Amino acid sequence: MPELRKDPILGRWVIISTERGGRPSSYGTVGARIAAKLCPFCAGKEDNTPPEILSYRDDDSEPNKPGWSLRVFPNKYPALVVEGSLDRQPHGLYDMMHGIGAHEVIVETPEHGRDMDQMEISELRDILWAYRERMVDLERDRRFKYILIFKNHGEAAGASLEHAHSQLIATPIIPKKVLEEIEGSRKYYEFKERCVYCDIIRQELSDQERVVRDYDSFLSIQPFAPRFPFETWILPKTHQSSYLEMSDHDYTLLAECVRDTLRRLKIALNDPPFNFVLHTRPIQKEHHEYYHWHIELIPKLTRVAGFEWGSGFYINPTPPEEAAEFLRGIDVEQMMGKEQNKPAEEKS
Amino acid sequence: MPELRKDPILGRWVIISTERGGRPSSYGTVGARIAAKLCPFCAGKEDNTPPEILSYRDDDSEPNKPGWSLRVFPNKYPALVVEGSLDRQPHGLYDMMHGIGAHEVIVETPEHGRDMDQMEISELRDILWAYRERMVDLERDRRFKYILIFKNHGEAAGASLEHAHSQLIATPIIPKKVLEEIEGSRKYYEFKERCVYCDIIRQELSDQERVVRDYDSFLSIQPFAPRFPFETWILPKTHQSSYLEMSDHDYTLLAECVRDTLRRLKIALNDPPFNFVLHTRPIQKEHHEYYHWHIELIPKLTRVAGFEWGSGFYINPTPPEEAAEFLRGIDVEQMMGKEQNKPAEEKS
Repeated sequence: MPELRKDPILGRWVIISTERGGRPSSYGTVGARIAAKLCPFCAGKEDNTPPEILSYRDDDSEPNKPGWSLRVFPNKYPALVVEGSLDRQPHGLYDMMHGIGAHEVIVETPEHGRDMDQMEISELRDILWAYRERMVDLERDRRFKYILIFKNHGEAAGASLEHAHSQLIATPIIPKKVLEEIEGSRKYYEFKERCVYCDIIRQELSDQERVVRDYDSFLSIQPFAPRFPFETWILPKTHQSSYLEMSDHDYTLLAECVRDTLRRLKIALNDPPFNFVLHTRPIQKEHHEYYHWHIELIPKLTRVAGFEWGSGFYINPTPPEEAAEFLRGIDVEQMMGKEQNKPAEEKS
Repeated sequence: MPELRKDPILGRWVIISTERGGRPSSYGTVGARIAAKLCPFCAGKEDNTPPEILSYRDDDSEPNKPGWSLRVFPNKYPALVVEGSLDRQPHGLYDMMHGIGAHEVIVETPEHGRDMDQMEISELRDILWAYRERMVDLERDRRFKYILIFKNHGEAAGASLEHAHSQLIATPIIPKKVLEEIEGSRKYYEFKERCVYCDIIRQELSDQERVVRDYDSFLSIQPFAPRFPFETWILPKTHQSSYLEMSDHDYTLLAECVRDTLRRLKIALNDPPFNFVLHTRPIQKEHHEYYHWHIELIPKLTRVAGFEWGSGFYINPTPPEEAAEFLRGIDVEQMMGKEQNKPAEEKS
């Protein structure tokens, strides 16, 4: 069973998860990527994954058979496992507990090589809706404190399979970075009695220089102090602490915003590897006044080196104002039109 | 001039440094590595670097000419610049200041391709002593609050030049990660009236299972809750809050400890890329009771993906007990003997 261990100085929990491979003798060899024809996420390969938890599929199709447009199942190599109790315990001065949690895979399309930015709005909305459905279900498990949804696109961003998918991890602790965001926004609220993210939205709409695009209900910006070049945030323009507070129609608007932003990044940076992370409040509802859910998109363009690891202090060579201007200037429809008309073999 | 900008939620400062390249249109192209024969850090290429600040050299040699064994000069593409005032200022709800600081390069040897683990103890001691000399000098500048020394080995760890070198950055703020370590160790001290690192050393020496090796004056361990496989810490066994508190003889003992630990990692992991980061207390001395300086060595074996960026919660597939056992079992002298006897062309 995986273990959760706490750093006694920083209070940072880590997952020690031997189920995922990583024996000492296995480093220094290079893992081969899985060829498309062996991809376990493609339609027809349902036997290669654990049984599905949720799927959107044709009415006359059977579970764990083809006929689906989106499929959710437990990760075959989970970082945390669902069965068991936390069993918090000391180890001398250290603290640990069992690695209890959920780790699920959301396969976004049956079609290998079809990325989020190429999908119809209805397909992208289904993905965003599936996030919601899984969160609502998992929030009922009292052992969990946080649900993190993320997506790694491209090998350099940590994706081990190229077939478009997102992941969900439900954790028995609130992760450190989330706690820091909550604490920071709580302090601002105590001082100002306003949500710091709402103030950021106001200032960005007024300054305009870091806005990528102002959409219906959502705003896409380059943050004022980005760690990475082209780090992009998507925020709901009205105050919502949780992803689950959106109206039904908002999911469609968010799909439009996400697709357009991803297209801009893809064209500007030549299909960069990226991480997509949904930041929402913990399952407990007490942070609703000052926390504001958002999405962080981080293209992987630079390497994180010793300075950053040692200090938590990032060096970013690209001012966000320049990145925003560059992204604003992209003619998405014209460029995507060209891409659609390319012969198929040039596409990927 | 570079800018320092503060994230309004997390309080995290970032450096926006356009001097280092990174215009929006420059991504999507791959940078070529500099060939060894063009290396600006080799003996005879002194004209290609800014004038030296410090060097260890033959008595009859001239500054900025060959004859040196170690050389320190300002980084040609500095993340922070020495001249100017901080000029703290608001920008709406945001905070910023000028990017004032020092950014220096410590070239560890005139010989291209000679790494720390291949050096004589006296050479390695000189590097550790040069760190000390530069810290003592820069601590006199009242604008600086912290001095961070680090080393990136290998391209995947962020090294843009392969010639062995370390870097020093003096910053006008205390970096976030350092503040967190200080805050964590202060809380522990308030509760226990003991240094948490001293307690860790006691427990590790008693448990033995995470010890890589117990050296004279220093201890090399795998921490209990490592973020990364084979993350290794080197700590002085007696309480010292600053790197500058070591006795003269300790620098030799540290050189022996660092070389042996690096050799074990090199043999175990097939010359992995790694980051070496010196964690010492801020220039102000008030943290001397509870902070404990140490070195963190992080081999780059896994990719940091969306989950980690989003949560600050790390998944590590290798238990530190297994990594420590593997490193303890390496016969350094026999393996390095073999390496020394290899024909030259096989060496690198």
